[in-house]
Amino acid sequence: MSLIVVGTMAFDAIETPFGKVDKIIGGSATYVSWAASNFIKPIKQVSIIGGDFPDKEIASLKERGVEFDGVEVVKDGKSFFWSGRYHLDMNTRDTLITDLNVLAQFNPQLPDSYQGSEFLMLGNLAPAVQISVIKQLKTRPKLIVLDTMNFWMEVALDGVKEVLTMVDVLMVNDAEARQLSGEHSLVKAAMKIMKMGPKFLIIKKGEHGALLFHEKSVFFAPALPLEDVFDPTGAGDSFAGGFIGHLAKTKDISYNNMKTAIIVGSAMASFCVEKFGPSRLQEVSPADITERINEFVELVNFDINLV
Amino acid sequence: MSLIVVGTMAFDAIETPFGKVDKIIGGSATYVSWAASNFIKPIKQVSIIGGDFPDKEIASLKERGVEFDGVEVVKDGKSFFWSGRYHLDMNTRDTLITDLNVLAQFNPQLPDSYQGSEFLMLGNLAPAVQISVIKQLKTRPKLIVLDTMNFWMEVALDGVKEVLTMVDVLMVNDAEARQLSGEHSLVKAAMKIMKMGPKFLIIKKGEHGALLFHEKSVFFAPALPLEDVFDPTGAGDSFAGGFIGHLAKTKDISYNNMKTAIIVGSAMASFCVEKFGPSRLQEVSPADITERINEFVELVNFDINLV
Repeated sequence: MSLIVVGTMAFDAIETPFGKVDKIIGGSATYVSWAASNFIKPIKQVSIIGGDFPDKEIASLKERGVEFDGVEVVKDGKSFFWSGRYHLDMNTRDTLITDLNVLAQFNPQLPDSYQGSEFLMLGNLAPAVQISVIKQLKTRPKLIVLDTMNFWMEVALDGVKEVLTMVDVLMVNDAEARQLSGEHSLVKAAMKIMKMGPKFLIIKKGEHGALLFHEKSVFFAPALPLEDVFDPTGAGDSFAGGFIGHLAKTKDISYNNMKTAIIVGSAMASFCVEKFGPSRLQEVSPADITERINEFVELVNFDINLV
Repeated sequence: MSLIVVGTMAFDAIETPFGKVDKIIGGSATYVSWAASNFIKPIKQVSIIGGDFPDKEIASLKERGVEFDGVEVVKDGKSFFWSGRYHLDMNTRDTLITDLNVLAQFNPQLPDSYQGSEFLMLGNLAPAVQISVIKQLKTRPKLIVLDTMNFWMEVALDGVKEVLTMVDVLMVNDAEARQLSGEHSLVKAAMKIMKMGPKFLIIKKGEHGALLFHEKSVFFAPALPLEDVFDPTGAGDSFAGGFIGHLAKTKDISYNNMKTAIIVGSAMASFCVEKFGPSRLQEVSPADITERINEFVELVNFDINLV
């Protein structure tokens, strides 16, 4: 039972109303693996980094059971760099700089040791790269989860539509669901998107929680009301890591278990936003996670007594 | 066991992306009573109307157990009129016209028959009017619920602060909670507002659901994801009516029962938005309400199995 995680490993510079950092570790695959490694190992990482990516960070991930056979290191290249600014409303952000660097040449070749994995998390990347990874797998994974973004809908919509036919679960935010479907109502948007391929759709609404759609059913998970959201970077990827990590651990990909997985994902996202970068994710213990999940249970638990 | 409802009974003109109506029945007390009368009677209405308010509407409410002894009729006056426009994002609206008409002279005198009521719902009105009603009650009700708006925080903040010291539950939306507290974080806002008087605070977030705060606890109720939100007018008042109606029916004002009451309120709000004005509220049956509440249970129900 293993999990392949495909995505970026990068440097981020981030400004929020609470502070500023110049160059910290980031990238979708970094956040996914930190979150998922609480639940499942090994994690078979697929990414590309420059010679500037710190050995220490690689060693910490390896200690958590993350394998690097599928991570290409371009010794004289620089790692992907992203810089962004959040305003008081943490649900939106401005991208200030995107330096692709080694990511521009990313053409992942899956090592033989990655074959036979049952779970595949495709982080936000060019659809062509996501499709290439799926096609390299000789046996289709039991579950393929896809993340994508508005950017790819604008520059590579045909690619997005193609990869959608190949996956089980799509994760997007509310604005992206509206853009992809052309529908303002999220219920109508979900019905249209599920006709494009994925049998399950997760719509992330940031501080307003997440919706899981499947056939005619819908499940809602709130975000935990936090005193401070310090830095939302990586929250969506931490959510994805908790989600697929729980499914891989329990080996159960039913709709019912996906509801629980969304709560686990929401818990991981709620940790992520408490500090800059993945630092909070790196320090949480299993007991912290259990306690946080219980807070979610408390948050939505009610008795219906209509008598 | 009876409920006093104080608020406006009015005419509304409404524009939404789905259509337009020129002059339909509206007003906070109208919506509260339509929603609450599914759960409790009698309802002792306190309001003011002009001679233009239709007898038929009064008769329908009376049939539902709403008493009119506390409703002043100004025969040669005109009822309060409000006109507004919603955009595609139904969470915000522009007010086009506010004609106070008879509301300008509203100075409610509670009939003796209203004394001894155990539940009091103070709809959005000038704080001075809300305070006057509380002071006229010889025995303090078991539960006083207050609705107010940003408008009163701007023009009568001292009055808002005074009435806050006299009530048990405050209902405001997220923007109003931030304005009243000066805190962006809703958790911090809630802590500050509860120090101003109310032991319970409900923060309404429209399509993003509602939060109930009490001491150190928080409960979250989602809004039902609907295919179409046709007209949000009155949704907050329908929510209030379902909330206090359930509490009055069950005679239980514990935090735990308030969670259930919020689900009931959310169900009533979800009906309200399906048609223009209170028309949908007027036609729902007890079976419809039970079915809708079960949809809320389905929406948030999950098993936690972390093994």
